[in-house]
Amino acid sequence: MRVLGVDPGLTRCGIGVVDGGIGHPVRLVAVGVIRTPVHDDPAERLLTLQTEIDQWMSDHEPDVVAVERVFAKANIKGIMGTAQASAVPMLAAARRGLPLAMHTPSEIKAAVTGSGRADKAQVTSMVTRILRLQTAPKPADAADALALAICHVWRGGAAERLAGATVRRPTPQTADRSVRRYAR
Amino acid sequence: MRVLGVDPGLTRCGIGVVDGGIGHPVRLVAVGVIRTPVHDDPAERLLTLQTEIDQWMSDHEPDVVAVERVFAKANIKGIMGTAQASAVPMLAAARRGLPLAMHTPSEIKAAVTGSGRADKAQVTSMVTRILRLQTAPKPADAADALALAICHVWRGGAAERLAGATVRRPTPQTADRSVRRYAR
Repeated sequence: MRVLGVDPGLTRCGIGVVDGGIGHPVRLVAVGVIRTPVHDDPAERLLTLQTEIDQWMSDHEPDVVAVERVFAKANIKGIMGTAQASAVPMLAAARRGLPLAMHTPSEIKAAVTGSGRADKAQVTSMVTRILRLQTAPKPADAADALALAICHVWRGGAAERLAGATVRRPTPQTADRSVRRYAR
Repeated sequence: MRVLGVDPGLTRCGIGVVDGGIGHPVRLVAVGVIRTPVHDDPAERLLTLQTEIDQWMSDHEPDVVAVERVFAKANIKGIMGTAQASAVPMLAAARRGLPLAMHTPSEIKAAVTGSGRADKAQVTSMVTRILRLQTAPKPADAADALALAICHVWRGGAAERLAGATVRRPTPQTADRSVRRYAR
């Protein structure tokens, strides 16, 4: 299974592709960050993001797209741009008929580090170890996109699960299972 | 100047087209509501919205697209879908090279009723009078999209103003001027 993970954002959008499956180690295919100019019109920034994400999809032909679920917390102003940016990979997946999964930040952290409250350095460190990379992926948004893709591989790939993941939050049991699978 | 106004939403997205310009009365071209099934996958809903909005743009060939600016207030959960939905007309405008303007709910209400705190019934009533319609546009989302388009016509159409409107909030003076123009 090839997963394309997107950590949505307008200023920096992390994007990463991994191959993996149950019983197989997870392998890095590609990782990067899409940046759009801060002074551009917001609609132009969304269009730039769309063009780049479409290119990544054409280049890597993923089986599934995973997008980090956006939550509104303290930074209300920033969250609007992030929510709009998240629509871009969602539309790209739907247009290609690809299954889409959304995972929350704490589910992603729990899957790769064992703790839903891990900090960015811990996530980057674990992603580097899991993918057996010589150097850590930078910036943090790139590592986050890989963590998301790894999280999705470990959560398994039945079509029903994928469809369900976009409309309901996975139960704590499935999150635990992902962690245990890595710990073995 | 032909303005296509979009009141973004996934469950009900108001859409309206008006013609108008300084010294000319505003005229209704078309109005409607795009609905997407609540039980569909969110990405599928965005794609349905995109297909419909593209069709409206092809059918009516607007000179400018106006989108209601989304704010996060009490309903944080609903706001994410609305923010994602707002990305769809923004992308459609950018892809066609059309100028995009964003107006806040209070700017729109002030433009058509004279008060930024007008309720939905007052907005619908004024939209019906301004466009000299026999019956009020329904539902409220459709009337809101027309109010937005009217608001944009009255705010004037220099290209610089349009470009500027997407990156900074218009000053209270411009809102007042729109109101006065209608009151004459």
